[in-house]
Amino acid sequence: MFKSIHEECGVVGIFEFENKPITDSIYFTLQALQHRGQESAGIAVCESGVIKQQKGLGLVNDVFKKEKLDEIKYGNMAIGHVRYSTTGLNNINNVQPLVIRHIKGNLALAHNGNLTNANELRQINEMHGAIFHGSSDTESILYCIVRERIKAKSIEEAIENTMYKIKGAYSCVAMSPKKIIAFRDPNGFRPLSLGKTKSGGYIVCSETCAIDSIGGEFIRDILPGEIIVISDDGVKSILTHQNKKNSFCIFEYIYFARPDSILEGTSVHKARVESGRLLAKESPVDADIVIGVPDSGLDAALGYSIESKIPYTVGFVKNKYIGRSFIMPEQELRENMVNIKLNVIKENIKGKRVVLIDDSIVRGTTIKKIINLLKDAGASEVHVRIPSPPFRYPCYFGTDIDSKEHLIANKCGSIEEIKDYIGATSLAYISTNSLKKIAINSKCGFCMACFTGKYPVSIPTNTEKNKFEEKITR
Amino acid sequence: MFKSIHEECGVVGIFEFENKPITDSIYFTLQALQHRGQESAGIAVCESGVIKQQKGLGLVNDVFKKEKLDEIKYGNMAIGHVRYSTTGLNNINNVQPLVIRHIKGNLALAHNGNLTNANELRQINEMHGAIFHGSSDTESILYCIVRERIKAKSIEEAIENTMYKIKGAYSCVAMSPKKIIAFRDPNGFRPLSLGKTKSGGYIVCSETCAIDSIGGEFIRDILPGEIIVISDDGVKSILTHQNKKNSFCIFEYIYFARPDSILEGTSVHKARVESGRLLAKESPVDADIVIGVPDSGLDAALGYSIESKIPYTVGFVKNKYIGRSFIMPEQELRENMVNIKLNVIKENIKGKRVVLIDDSIVRGTTIKKIINLLKDAGASEVHVRIPSPPFRYPCYFGTDIDSKEHLIANKCGSIEEIKDYIGATSLAYISTNSLKKIAINSKCGFCMACFTGKYPVSIPTNTEKNKFEEKITR
Amino acid sequence: MFKSIHEECGVVGIFEFENKPITDSIYFTLQALQHRGQESAGIAVCESGVIKQQKGLGLVNDVFKKEKLDEIKYGNMAIGHVRYSTTGLNNINNVQPLVIRHIKGNLALAHNGNLTNANELRQINEMHGAIFHGSSDTESILYCIVRERIKAKSIEEAIENTMYKIKGAYSCVAMSPKKIIAFRDPNGFRPLSLGKTKSGGYIVCSETCAIDSIGGEFIRDILPGEIIVISDDGVKSILTHQNKKNSFCIFEYIYFARPDSILEGTSVHKARVESGRLLAKESPVDADIVIGVPDSGLDAALGYSIESKIPYTVGFVKNKYIGRSFIMPEQELRENMVNIKLNVIKENIKGKRVVLIDDSIVRGTTIKKIINLLKDAGASEVHVRIPSPPFRYPCYFGTDIDSKEHLIANKCGSIEEIKDYIGATSLAYISTNSLKKIAINSKCGFCMACFTGKYPVSIPTNTEKNKFEEKITR
Amino acid sequence: MFKSIHEECGVVGIFEFENKPITDSIYFTLQALQHRGQESAGIAVCESGVIKQQKGLGLVNDVFKKEKLDEIKYGNMAIGHVRYSTTGLNNINNVQPLVIRHIKGNLALAHNGNLTNANELRQINEMHGAIFHGSSDTESILYCIVRERIKAKSIEEAIENTMYKIKGAYSCVAMSPKKIIAFRDPNGFRPLSLGKTKSGGYIVCSETCAIDSIGGEFIRDILPGEIIVISDDGVKSILTHQNKKNSFCIFEYIYFARPDSILEGTSVHKARVESGRLLAKESPVDADIVIGVPDSGLDAALGYSIESKIPYTVGFVKNKYIGRSFIMPEQELRENMVNIKLNVIKENIKGKRVVLIDDSIVRGTTIKKIINLLKDAGASEVHVRIPSPPFRYPCYFGTDIDSKEHLIANKCGSIEEIKDYIGATSLAYISTNSLKKIAINSKCGFCMACFTGKYPVSIPTNTEKNKFEEKITR
Repeated sequence: MFKSIHEECGVVGIFEFENKPITDSIYFTLQALQHRGQESAGIAVCESGVIKQQKGLGLVNDVFKKEKLDEIKYGNMAIGHVRYSTTGLNNINNVQPLVIRHIKGNLALAHNGNLTNANELRQINEMHGAIFHGSSDTESILYCIVRERIKAKSIEEAIENTMYKIKGAYSCVAMSPKKIIAFRDPNGFRPLSLGKTKSGGYIVCSETCAIDSIGGEFIRDILPGEIIVISDDGVKSILTHQNKKNSFCIFEYIYFARPDSILEGTSVHKARVESGRLLAKESPVDADIVIGVPDSGLDAALGYSIESKIPYTVGFVKNKYIGRSFIMPEQELRENMVNIKLNVIKENIKGKRVVLIDDSIVRGTTIKKIINLLKDAGASEVHVRIPSPPFRYPCYFGTDIDSKEHLIANKCGSIEEIKDYIGATSLAYISTNSLKKIAINSKCGFCMACFTGKYPVSIPTNTEKNKFEEKITR
Repeated sequence: MFKSIHEECGVVGIFEFENKPITDSIYFTLQALQHRGQESAGIAVCESGVIKQQKGLGLVNDVFKKEKLDEIKYGNMAIGHVRYSTTGLNNINNVQPLVIRHIKGNLALAHNGNLTNANELRQINEMHGAIFHGSSDTESILYCIVRERIKAKSIEEAIENTMYKIKGAYSCVAMSPKKIIAFRDPNGFRPLSLGKTKSGGYIVCSETCAIDSIGGEFIRDILPGEIIVISDDGVKSILTHQNKKNSFCIFEYIYFARPDSILEGTSVHKARVESGRLLAKESPVDADIVIGVPDSGLDAALGYSIESKIPYTVGFVKNKYIGRSFIMPEQELRENMVNIKLNVIKENIKGKRVVLIDDSIVRGTTIKKIINLLKDAGASEVHVRIPSPPFRYPCYFGTDIDSKEHLIANKCGSIEEIKDYIGATSLAYISTNSLKKIAINSKCGFCMACFTGKYPVSIPTNTEKNKFEEKITR
Repeated sequence: MFKSIHEECGVVGIFEFENKPITDSIYFTLQALQHRGQESAGIAVCESGVIKQQKGLGLVNDVFKKEKLDEIKYGNMAIGHVRYSTTGLNNINNVQPLVIRHIKGNLALAHNGNLTNANELRQINEMHGAIFHGSSDTESILYCIVRERIKAKSIEEAIENTMYKIKGAYSCVAMSPKKIIAFRDPNGFRPLSLGKTKSGGYIVCSETCAIDSIGGEFIRDILPGEIIVISDDGVKSILTHQNKKNSFCIFEYIYFARPDSILEGTSVHKARVESGRLLAKESPVDADIVIGVPDSGLDAALGYSIESKIPYTVGFVKNKYIGRSFIMPEQELRENMVNIKLNVIKENIKGKRVVLIDDSIVRGTTIKKIINLLKDAGASEVHVRIPSPPFRYPCYFGTDIDSKEHLIANKCGSIEEIKDYIGATSLAYISTNSLKKIAINSKCGFCMACFTGKYPVSIPTNTEKNKFEEKITR
Repeated sequence: MFKSIHEECGVVGIFEFENKPITDSIYFTLQALQHRGQESAGIAVCESGVIKQQKGLGLVNDVFKKEKLDEIKYGNMAIGHVRYSTTGLNNINNVQPLVIRHIKGNLALAHNGNLTNANELRQINEMHGAIFHGSSDTESILYCIVRERIKAKSIEEAIENTMYKIKGAYSCVAMSPKKIIAFRDPNGFRPLSLGKTKSGGYIVCSETCAIDSIGGEFIRDILPGEIIVISDDGVKSILTHQNKKNSFCIFEYIYFARPDSILEGTSVHKARVESGRLLAKESPVDADIVIGVPDSGLDAALGYSIESKIPYTVGFVKNKYIGRSFIMPEQELRENMVNIKLNVIKENIKGKRVVLIDDSIVRGTTIKKIINLLKDAGASEVHVRIPSPPFRYPCYFGTDIDSKEHLIANKCGSIEEIKDYIGATSLAYISTNSLKKIAINSKCGFCMACFTGKYPVSIPTNTEKNKFEEKITR
């Protein structure tokens, strides 16, 4: 309802050394990763070498009812997936994990990211007689693995060879009847963490908050280009795809990830606070209060307050009951949509010069309405400060930012114009220079291509996003 | 609830020469074919060369809600499928039509039947890197078509070549972005009919009742081994796979098909009446009334009455509201299950010598309960007459008869023993000799392998049914 | 979809001498009575003097899911209700049984019928401060009982006194924390039967098919004007309201009741066969076959065949999967609606002179379509014979016949005109004189007011049906 | 999942001077009031004097689907209700608004609060023949109004007279076919506000956030004992029940109400900040950071920080996707329930002396787990500060606090003992003296009976809560 920018997936895998109600654990971790994808969810469980699955469209709570979960309750391994996808007609075929049978048996795969050579891979595979059931590049990864597996000695060797062929962003968790294998692209675009479960097993997942959700213990990030193999022999690392020039998505800190997660060594919450602090240094302003747009603007607002000494306060109450089943009203009332979801605490705003922090501006329509709410509540000035630079370029690495022509930063010629459009007293974005510094403890490089247009790897020549339905030819 | 014998699928395809609300028509035909498969349903529609689909688990009424149907309402071509399948965990992946993308574009396929070389085909394809999402042999057909399509000049040529490779039973409807292609195995195990729609288009479907449901006109049966190609150029027939020794499933007449359908030139209703007539000739009995077990035993009961001159009457009322959501009661009441679904009209039965006709006996438990009901209602004698021979052998051609060891005809040494087990006064089955004659106008040969064990084509060496979940290896 | 004539309710009560999973039994009986009301269903259970309930809109299968039923599984008494009601906005408040608290404790009530003095009773009660939650006259019965109960020594005495005040049709089952009390209006408009359960308890219900559904034993009809009290002391009969001029609804035999029920001593099936027989005597015709419109015309068709010696055969196959969730198609296809639900067995009809039996004609539109189907199938003549006289007058006693002005018998001046409108070769209705004789063993009088306009009791002066929503005033 | 203390209802009414899609507006306001009751929701709409309704169990989003809402879309008046209720079997009968018919027409009523003389009123009414469908005291109010209405000149006069008879807490909105009447008990236990809609109509509602949700304008609180009549003649106030000793529930500020609401002149948010400030004054502590338990502890934490100068920071991330359909896991994982719903931001906590603010302590089990989470995250000290006094006494005025014997303050002899039980380094509650001062601008008196045991009105002698199901007698 608010953002037209979306993370596309969350993945998780758990390995235990004996049979357990492992699906309960996966269910918990998917609840913890729900923010990474709200369109579909799936679980594949392996019990005594047999892989079973449940999946469907909707939130984790919609897809997994008790009786369905109970059918796949037990196992020693399981993987899970949550997904955001543009609502298409075909989408049940795209819900992950994909569980397939190939020459050597079964394989389940969950993928976060986007391949940049998906089209080429699909064409190559199709020339060999491959058939694709969905639009997802995940099927291309599977075909590569399966073709390599024919020659390779093990599933991990097949995956290692596959990684020479697939380009772009992928943080994957695969499950064969005996192993869980996690692998991350050499750039390390998307996060992937390794942890220990309470009972001595292992967990791999997109974010550390999933480890916390089952009371587990964080071990370390899986490295860019690393393959982690978990089996009855324990954990093995394969590092042949290591790469010095990695490029972690910096927007994971700003918006996608949960504040309680630790990515590449830095707390997401801390990175957000730091972004606010740096923003205050770069773009100070004389004002009475600092407020954030809930929920993702709050931490940066706190940072701005700390640095600027302008008091932090609460500007809004968010209605937590407005969900996806909310019924859109007639035109007349639709203008009020923002204050149904977000209401101003007028007492705090009236007569005040306000610094307003939101994580980013996409189309500019939402922030415009929010500024209006503040003015209606009596704010004398509204200084907008954004802890991310203006969006200008598409992302090819697993997120869905609004189309280029809808981005306010592309529609307006200057920051001044954007300021006028949204009705702010003043407007400042963080510089890319400061942005780079928000993840204080992280040693990795960053991808900031959506702000700079400098892509760390080559991008698809066909700039259109690859959508199954639209590509169907005669 | 009553039978452990199941047809596995119904298929349909409609081609029109212009865009129409074609999905409404397909929806009607699937309602008409619902008796052929109640576990899942799907529709794929082609509008201006773009194929969209909707599918799901459950009855046609469960799967297709108005708003979902409306999303795919219009097109000039559409195919549909209803399916029975053993309830497995993976089954969403098996719901048809399968819509896939391959090197030359898109293809949708709906299949009724079972391949006998599905395992071999899967292994061959897997050796070339194929991946299988479901358990269904339909994916094997698709891989064959797609591999042939690389070399072939047209989709119909690819299908023609495919038919040299696939063995067993298949009545299929495929849809490419420009054509609907229907093809039937050379034995003609399962029915497949061609008709004309009211608006001058064409329909192919499992049974003629689907043609009636949209007010269409029956043209003719599609021949065993025939390929029918429907495009803007009209209807084309390819007959390279013709075969003299065809073997239509005789149980379609006895139980599977709808009485108002005409298969291979013979009305199903008439064939059932005839089966009763022949049964009366073979196994007459001195009795007061003839009754049938609803619904499939009624027509044969009428035939028995006509031949024997024993008055036909109504023995039972069936509760039409007992559906799949019926809640099974505690043990104590479960014994009453039959008379919740089926109640005796006592006034007609009391003191009477009854001839009872049921289409077939599988495990014998249901007929035993029904005989008990009649005795409780005061029947002095219950003479059971069955218009099909005893089931003794598995079917490999698209139906699911109970496992060999559960069949009462295999458990009991003789008809006498079965009679005693079910508590009948006398018991007679139709002879295979008479059975052959029930379809008076049909020119085709018949498959009666489930009764005789004489299979018209070689059967799988691995006698186990091929189920995905059970085959998963390490 | 077919008839615009509706029974309005079915009721049931079970008394056991100890705690049991009694709700399972009630659930079974409501399944058996489902044909008497498909709009809502409810169960009230009494366990150790505490009354609990579950109810909702829809079929028994929709309303009662396993987990809900299990919450009220046990008790020594329970009553149930199925209801047809014109779809209104308020209807959840009308779903029965009504469970209320009054000065002496709790009371549950299920009612089949319609009071003719509901308006007067409501006004009287309202003058004393009563409030009505629903439109149903059942609340008026409750207010009368409750007001009488203040003075009376027992609940049965209160009911006895209430019966002096309420007029019209009522077959009721009430449950106090210690007793089940069934009572029937002095005219005996609606059926009500008494039976024994397998475990030695008692059952009262609208039709005997409900007794059969739990394997019980029919004892006798509850008499017009009788009150039956079932408690730990056994069964007691109170006969102070006996009346010689009773008037059982004859349409229960023709259409409403299930053929396997026995009402007033006569099998419904037998009465239907007899109606066909008498019709054949009154209105013979030279023809080749007799067919019935499923399901309610089949028995009369058999009777017509027996009397006329014209062979009985099957004319139609009814699609049993077309339910309430069926999606109505666009106009173009809507004309085909009849042959989606009902398809002709053409082989039986082609070139034949057909006698077509349907239970009744309401608006004439359906029979017109059916005759068309037969002609399209090649019938040379279609002689329509109806085992009930023409509908001309409204019913005030618990059924919902189409409004007077829509009745074809009122729109057309003569039988001849109706014949022309529906396109029959000839048309004949049974005479009221013959109709009276169909229930061979019944000793009771009959209400035939919908055919004759001769009402056995005075009817409401305000001829409008009493609907809550439409009556709301300022 | 977290609190065993519940507000019992939210009410709203809107009056417009012409027909509008008024249900959309009510739907919005119920979304805004959802926090006041999550068990059921209902809307009654009046269009041209006719009252229609929709209601059901569940959240507003569950109960109102688009097609249902559209059935009652238009009207010039509407009232709505959200309700919390202990899950009982009878509850569909208790869902409000209640819409009834009485001698003078129709009436709809929505009630927030609890009568203290509900039992007496019910008995009196029952002696006159009243029947009760639900457990709710709201039916008693209706009976009083309806009985008074017989004698009174107007509905408002009937309500005025009723207010002499009903005791306890009630903030009600009634709707007759021409008027909306809001009335509040003389003590003013529960809030009730008056506002103007954008189109010049009027709104009455439990909290001002509902006015904001439709872009309306707050006018003023409805006074304790006041009756507000809204009709085509505008707004009329009746003040005969005014009372000097009013007693507004102080826990509305602490927990129940939304922070963006203004109750009795004071912003809820401000009152919470003030409570933290006063708590810091009373119970200072040497610490490194102040954190609040989301969401209701955050504002007080900010206040504590402001007063104490100890930095405010974020301690927890709350998983907003964990809803009522969350599946409870096996025992082993259940201990982790708190960190699935609430996860610690470890980076902020490690090595820190923490001041932890939660709005209140009921059983003590949740705070104990939260303290454990903090310790596990490395907190060196955890000083718990609670901006409400210990709960010790039941509430009879419309909220549901845990039963007396489960309250930790009653189980432990001293604050010290509670501190030890929950594992805090130190523990302090706000004093009642300070509590009184949190609502800076409010002129009203307060009810603090749950803390002090001093009830502002006499309480029921039968201390048991009145539950329908449990009271059913013979």
